[in-house]
Amino acid sequence: MISKLKHNEFARKTLDYFKKANIVLTEDEQNKIEIADFGLDDIENTGLQLITYINTERVCAKELVLFPNQTCPEHRHPDRNGLPGKEETFRCRYGRVYLYVSGDPAANPFCKPPAGSEEYFTVWHEVVLNPGEQYTILPNTLHWFQAGGEGAIVSEFSTKSHDESDIFTDVRIKRIPVIEN
Amino acid sequence: MISKLKHNEFARKTLDYFKKANIVLTEDEQNKIEIADFGLDDIENTGLQLITYINTERVCAKELVLFPNQTCPEHRHPDRNGLPGKEETFRCRYGRVYLYVSGDPAANPFCKPPAGSEEYFTVWHEVVLNPGEQYTILPNTLHWFQAGGEGAIVSEFSTKSHDESDIFTDVRIKRIPVIEN
Repeated sequence: MISKLKHNEFARKTLDYFKKANIVLTEDEQNKIEIADFGLDDIENTGLQLITYINTERVCAKELVLFPNQTCPEHRHPDRNGLPGKEETFRCRYGRVYLYVSGDPAANPFCKPPAGSEEYFTVWHEVVLNPGEQYTILPNTLHWFQAGGEGAIVSEFSTKSHDESDIFTDVRIKRIPVIEN
Repeated sequence: MISKLKHNEFARKTLDYFKKANIVLTEDEQNKIEIADFGLDDIENTGLQLITYINTERVCAKELVLFPNQTCPEHRHPDRNGLPGKEETFRCRYGRVYLYVSGDPAANPFCKPPAGSEEYFTVWHEVVLNPGEQYTILPNTLHWFQAGGEGAIVSEFSTKSHDESDIFTDVRIKRIPVIEN
């Protein structure tokens, strides 16, 4: 659960990032920033801020914001009802993001998992994305990512998003945020 | 056909627009800007500049640039091989774009078709997109668009793009650009 106070503070900080990167949101979108704390109550380290522009049956586009060194924990997008799971392309727009996917592990990965969660990070193939660089994650591929010291903004272009179906390696995680009243 | 000289001039101007809007492209992308003159040899009036970030079997994302008052002519994305045609969401990032789709016609539309092409513009439902505003165009929907006086940058989030299958109202149009040697 995230307190309303912290939710509002993180939403404000997210808008500052969009402003810095010249990304314009409508007023309605500004009021719909999603603050995902993944139910771990450690959002400074494990968390993600986002706005969903569009999510139809066929197409989804989001803008993701990570604050400095913040981590989106390891997960995958499984097949659903016999159809292939979510395919997503991450394009870095601002800052730098370190993306880890299954594949040859990095000998000296730049990032460390958030303290206390080490056992839930199992894939170590490292992809570094600077502004303008992108990477496509196929369905069912385990992945996690962490921002560099400046934070990061990442555009996500994907098939339909069903966040509630994501499978996290960390069984303690709840993807859908709950805001305290 | 477009001359190499004009192609390069328009590609350079396109990069200036991206710079102005803080949109970062890789060097490889900078060298792959597509300049679409639609075969009408009147690119100042009928033309479109674009970069395709990704175009897989399921997802496509592009950035479109229109120079001041430039028009992308009327077309639709038909169904293909029994599958629904391209669905696209246009999100204005910079400047202003006037989008025309089938539906209730505007009494006093802001835009005029390029001179001499009037008969090939048949849909007049007007949607004005300022930065941060977006609109989703369903498969098979006739549409065309024109930039305002500052030009426009539009992000396109869509299903797979098959530009060669687009059906233009103007039968003289050739969508795939040919560059003179």
